[in-house]
Amino acid sequence: MEQSIRNQLPGTIKSIVSDKVLSEVIVETSIGEVASVITTRSVEEMKLKLGDKVFVLVKATNVSLRRRS
Amino acid sequence: MEQSIRNQLPGTIKSIVSDKVLSEVIVETSIGEVASVITTRSVEEMKLKLGDKVFVLVKATNVSLRRRS
Amino acid sequence: MEQSIRNQLPGTIKSIVSDKVLSEVIVETSIGEVASVITTRSVEEMKLKLGDKVFVLVKATNVSLRRRS
Amino acid sequence: MEQSIRNQLPGTIKSIVSDKVLSEVIVETSIGEVASVITTRSVEEMKLKLGDKVFVLVKATNVSLRRRS
Amino acid sequence: MEQSIRNQLPGTIKSIVSDKVLSEVIVETSIGEVASVITTRSVEEMKLKLGDKVFVLVKATNVSLRRRS
Amino acid sequence: MEQSIRNQLPGTIKSIVSDKVLSEVIVETSIGEVASVITTRSVEEMKLKLGDKVFVLVKATNVSLRRRS
Repeated sequence: MEQSIRNQLPGTIKSIVSDKVLSEVIVETSIGEVASVITTRSVEEMKLKLGDKVFVLVKATNVSLRRRS
Repeated sequence: MEQSIRNQLPGTIKSIVSDKVLSEVIVETSIGEVASVITTRSVEEMKLKLGDKVFVLVKATNVSLRRRS
Repeated sequence: MEQSIRNQLPGTIKSIVSDKVLSEVIVETSIGEVASVITTRSVEEMKLKLGDKVFVLVKATNVSLRRRS
Repeated sequence: MEQSIRNQLPGTIKSIVSDKVLSEVIVETSIGEVASVITTRSVEEMKLKLGDKVFVLVKATNVSLRRRS
Repeated sequence: MEQSIRNQLPGTIKSIVSDKVLSEVIVETSIGEVASVITTRSVEEMKLKLGDKVFVLVKATNVSLRRRS
Repeated sequence: MEQSIRNQLPGTIKSIVSDKVLSEVIVETSIGEVASVITTRSVEEMKLKLGDKVFVLVKATNVSLRRRS
C-alpha cells in the first residue's frame, strides 16, 4: 500500500460543475454515483474531464454509518 | 431527501474492532470493503453487530480523486 | 440511535447564500448561530428555505476544543 | 475575529475517556452535550479536566443538515 | 497549549480567490505553499489580505500519509 | 498532478504510537513536527517505521487559518 487512505473506489467522471474556487465532480461507480467536491485548481491541474477513469478516495475517519432496515 | 449528506452506499457489516474511544467498522459493499471509524459509544448505542445492514455516509467535501490509468 | 453521527443540535434556518457548487446555510440555535456549508444540490433536493427546522450534524472527530478563561 | 473557524460554542467538560492515541471529551453546553474526539496528547498538553470551561470548534465545511419535522 | 489543534505552521498569505461562499487562500511557508479553503465571510471578518502573517491549522485526524521513495 | 489533494509536505517519521484502531504518526518536516492520525491497519499495510520518508497529505478544505501578530 502506497498511502494511508483506505477507501478507494473505482469509477468514471459523469459531470463537472465549477465555481472559481471549488468544483463538484460526480463519479459513476458500480454502486451508484459518488459526489466529490475538490478545488477547481485541482480539476485544471489534473485536466479532469467527462469519461476519465478515477478512484474516489475517502479517509476512514470521515465515514459515518446509518442503519437501513 | 432527508439530510444533506450526498453519498450513501448500502452494505453489510463484516467486522468490528474496538478501542475504548473509537471503533473500526468494515462494511462489505458490492464495490468492495469500506472502512469506517466511528465512536465506540455509537457502536454500542446503535447496537451494531456483524451482518447488520447499513449505509456508509460520506460528505461530498470529504471525497478526493485520484487518476487510474 | 439510527446513525453514528453523535452531535445533532436543533435549530432554524436563518439565511442561505449559494454559489453553483456550495451553499452557506446559517442555522439559528438556542446557543447561537451555526454556519454550515453543504452542496447547493442538497439545498435544492431538500428544498431548504428560511424558517425550516433542521438539525445540524457534526461527527465527533471533527470537533476541536479551545480553552475559555 | 482571530481565526477562521466559524462555529465556537461555549461549554464545560463533563467527561474524558482516553486511549493512548485519542480521547473522547464530552462538553456540556446549554443546548445539550457535544462529543469531541481529540488526541490524548492535546488533552495532556492543555491539562484538560472535568469542569474546565472550553469552546467547541467546528469548521463550517464539516457541518451537515437534517430535516426535523 | 490553548487549543487542541496540533498542527500550526507559520506562513504569509500569497493569494486569495473568492466566490460568494468560499475562498481559497494560498499561504507561503518555508516548506512550500499550503492551500486553504475557508468561508468568504471569515476572510472578510478577519480582514485577510496579501502579505498577512498567519498560521495554517490542521486537525491531526485530517492528515494522511503517502510514501516517498 | 495525479490526485486532487493539494497539500503534500515531505518529512520523515519520528514516532509511532498505536492503539488497536488508530495510530498517531509524528512526521518531522523542515517547518516542524506534523501529527497524523491514521488507522493502525494502514500503518501495518504500509509497513511504516521510524525514519521512513513520507509526504503528509491534507485536503485544502481541512485547512483553517489563524492570525499571528
